[in-house]
Amino acid sequence: MFSGAQISLYPMSDDYVGIILEALTALDPHRAQCRIETDDLSTLVVGPPERLFPAMRDLFVKASSGGIHCVLSATVSRGCPGEPDNPICTPTATAPPASLEARIAAARVAVAAAKLTGQPVAAQLSVYGCIDFLKQSGVFDRAKNFCTKLRGDAGPVFATLGEAFLSFGPPAGHVALDLTVSANSPSA
Amino acid sequence: MFSGAQISLYPMSDDYVGIILEALTALDPHRAQCRIETDDLSTLVVGPPERLFPAMRDLFVKASSGGIHCVLSATVSRGCPGEPDNPICTPTATAPPASLEARIAAARVAVAAAKLTGQPVAAQLSVYGCIDFLKQSGVFDRAKNFCTKLRGDAGPVFATLGEAFLSFGPPAGHVALDLTVSANSPSA
Repeated sequence: MFSGAQISLYPMSDDYVGIILEALTALDPHRAQCRIETDDLSTLVVGPPERLFPAMRDLFVKASSGGIHCVLSATVSRGCPGEPDNPICTPTATAPPASLEARIAAARVAVAAAKLTGQPVAAQLSVYGCIDFLKQSGVFDRAKNFCTKLRGDAGPVFATLGEAFLSFGPPAGHVALDLTVSANSPSA
Repeated sequence: MFSGAQISLYPMSDDYVGIILEALTALDPHRAQCRIETDDLSTLVVGPPERLFPAMRDLFVKASSGGIHCVLSATVSRGCPGEPDNPICTPTATAPPASLEARIAAARVAVAAAKLTGQPVAAQLSVYGCIDFLKQSGVFDRAKNFCTKLRGDAGPVFATLGEAFLSFGPPAGHVALDLTVSANSPSA
């Protein structure tokens, strides 16, 4: 299996370079388990699928902590046909239960256990097949055209995004998810 | 058919509110043919599929014209199951030719005819089924994990993104495309 994310961070500030470079230090605890490459459009993080969302959460909470309006946008993928298998991507977690009902229950437990960060965020994701879980996640905001909107503390919101990616869809099949997370928006 | 896009604009500037509000005036010529709604995460544009990419190009070129590093991120969809049919979305263009070879040839003609804007951009998109066209588009940069990267003037780049959306995939089936376009990046 190959799993990873193309991640972009947009601080709406004249000091965006400084904010991005400072936020990238939040990835340091994840570097040993991941391969990380950056170009002018995004940062590729390749690693175990359950490591991707905690890494994005840490990056984003760090970037937003100064109160600047920040957005994280990412394409997350696992099991993509044509991507080479990679030992670094081997899941360390056990496979989710088989029935949809049991998956939803387990995913809700994981979200309820997520540590609060103190950073409120809004998020939207384009994904199919887990709308029933998203509605029961505790951070569901509303359905929109082409996506589902979440709102809450960054802890449970990133946990919900992670469960949507990890626990639904075929365990060995291709799952791709596009997401946007926003903090400190004056329009919120 | 239902077609539209969730579009977000990120100017990396303290004056992001002013830049966004000014850039939105570039959508005025498209308003008569589209329904446009904004919340704190994105702006929904619902309209004929071939109208969406010129609208995004005009919005983005206007936002980038002052030299500020700007990013546009969008999820574009047509024929999504579960979305209501909408007369505003009726395509005004004729259907693309049937064979893949003829589609690629027609799409290349459309890109070659695109008016230059004078704004250099980089872009990446996650889409399947038109990689051969992207490679021959004249703005192909390289393949990345989970996406394809383009680089060139905003005119042919948005035309290429539009052709990927309009001319490939089943004419009446569901096509979804996620894209990121960047201008004035100091990392480029």
